[in-house]
Amino acid sequence: MTLYESRLTAIENYLATTEYPKEPSNLYDPIRYFMALGGKRIRPLFTVLSAELFGGTLDNSLPAAAALEMFHNFTLIHDDIMDGAPKRRNLPTVHEKWNSNIAILSGDALMIHAFQELSNYEANTFKALSSLLHKTSIEVCIGQQMDLDFESMEVVSEAQYLEMIRLKTSVLLGCACAFGGILEKTSTSNIDHLYRFGEQLGIAFQIQDDILDAFGSETKVGKQIGGDILSDKKTLLYTTFQHRASSVEKARHQQLSKTSPEEKIQGIKQLYLDCEVLDYCKAVQENHWQKCQENLSDLETNEPKDLLKELLNFINHRNY
Amino acid sequence: MTLYESRLTAIENYLATTEYPKEPSNLYDPIRYFMALGGKRIRPLFTVLSAELFGGTLDNSLPAAAALEMFHNFTLIHDDIMDGAPKRRNLPTVHEKWNSNIAILSGDALMIHAFQELSNYEANTFKALSSLLHKTSIEVCIGQQMDLDFESMEVVSEAQYLEMIRLKTSVLLGCACAFGGILEKTSTSNIDHLYRFGEQLGIAFQIQDDILDAFGSETKVGKQIGGDILSDKKTLLYTTFQHRASSVEKARHQQLSKTSPEEKIQGIKQLYLDCEVLDYCKAVQENHWQKCQENLSDLETNEPKDLLKELLNFINHRNY
Repeated sequence: MTLYESRLTAIENYLATTEYPKEPSNLYDPIRYFMALGGKRIRPLFTVLSAELFGGTLDNSLPAAAALEMFHNFTLIHDDIMDGAPKRRNLPTVHEKWNSNIAILSGDALMIHAFQELSNYEANTFKALSSLLHKTSIEVCIGQQMDLDFESMEVVSEAQYLEMIRLKTSVLLGCACAFGGILEKTSTSNIDHLYRFGEQLGIAFQIQDDILDAFGSETKVGKQIGGDILSDKKTLLYTTFQHRASSVEKARHQQLSKTSPEEKIQGIKQLYLDCEVLDYCKAVQENHWQKCQENLSDLETNEPKDLLKELLNFINHRNY
Repeated sequence: MTLYESRLTAIENYLATTEYPKEPSNLYDPIRYFMALGGKRIRPLFTVLSAELFGGTLDNSLPAAAALEMFHNFTLIHDDIMDGAPKRRNLPTVHEKWNSNIAILSGDALMIHAFQELSNYEANTFKALSSLLHKTSIEVCIGQQMDLDFESMEVVSEAQYLEMIRLKTSVLLGCACAFGGILEKTSTSNIDHLYRFGEQLGIAFQIQDDILDAFGSETKVGKQIGGDILSDKKTLLYTTFQHRASSVEKARHQQLSKTSPEEKIQGIKQLYLDCEVLDYCKAVQENHWQKCQENLSDLETNEPKDLLKELLNFINHRNY
């Protein structure tokens, strides 16, 4: 991401110099710890780049960009408790390093600090940004609840799945892009295109993640392959298979659950190929990339869109 | 509280007709359940009455009043998880009736809905209300963390204790009163007096609660007496005793921990009387009542302050 290095450095600096109260340490050490864990900072980067499309400066876009990164990190702290996840970016999660109560409360405080960050803007901009972030935040909670609900559901439809990932992960990307337009007071139509651009990108990105988790190369993806298959996670691959498979293939799928992890992963991947699940999912993903690019093209701006296009390319060509 | 019946009915109606999304039911059923559990609705009542002091109407003050009640209920849902509390108002808490994950997430969503409720106001009022609520919300989290930290501390000073209850419970009452002034765009000095009025009232109220928990009459207080003593809770009585007791009295206090619950309660109450703990705490409480009343007197308004004075009296004369 060298193209964006100066922006990413500015974002990191802004986040690193954001001052939280020193005490109580059990409330703010977890926040400082978690915010320093890193991450791609993709949401603030999209806010900054979107603002630039309409003449925005880093100085003006950084507080809004930071608010989104803070909000995103709050969701991760609480999601980690709900998932019982021991690690985040190879380091202990907050509820592991401290405890669940501290993770609940520091997450709460971080969410409030995220909303508070927006008060750097004058009243009208503050209200426009806050209103979109409130709406988006509620959608993210709904998406997370849908994801939790899916765990105990036998059948999840493609539409339900796509709606879940749209809410859980994509609307925040949409919000990040729209923020740039709101900050620069561009037209409603442009703000709408920015939002759709981020939202469709987020959906495509999540489907790609699902595909990589099963069909990616371990060295290139940088994590163990097949985790979703082993845990019977309701991904797009899973729901597509359930929809397309014959009763014989479904029976084979069930049988494979009783075999060794390695056999289960290989066997189910073969089933996915037999039922053309992979091709289908790639087509769905491509459809969302298309919509994403269309919304980028439809933006009316005098600034070149190269940086966003590059970022799109970079994200789209993560290796299989 | 018959004097306030019309306002309380309006508040209940407003809360009851607040529409949350129908789905996912695991996210919104807990919110609807908890908001319908009732409670004194003291915070929204203070917002409504404070606004009236400056000519405000119910119609205008209800959204801000409701936001505070929603925020307060969010804190209760999360506090109940942290305290492992099985009951709230004699009914199962959210994490008991559903589970902890659902309680975390529905609490998060309720907090966001509280902030969102403020967008009923135009941009400048929205920003003023939001900024105070953000500041207050963060203080509430800090107060809750201090309270959790106290559990594992040997010694808690009076100053630490008073700061904890100020943050955990009183600043939200201050915020509720200040909201009325902000809504009616009264002077900064009036808003400040409203805030201090609520804040000092909250502190006095909490100290009174501590005293009643040990020295109240079971039938009049409506709950079992001595709970704080049994759990060695760091109340003002406890910290005052630690400060005033001789080493012999402290040793006696420790001994009493090994006796039966009834003996422990009676023995420690006697120690509190011997060390003049009760008188001291009543004096501290009185001091905060005084400040509360001073701030009410200092308010410059053409409306009569009778209703707030009555409410103050009502709260101050809960029976021992």
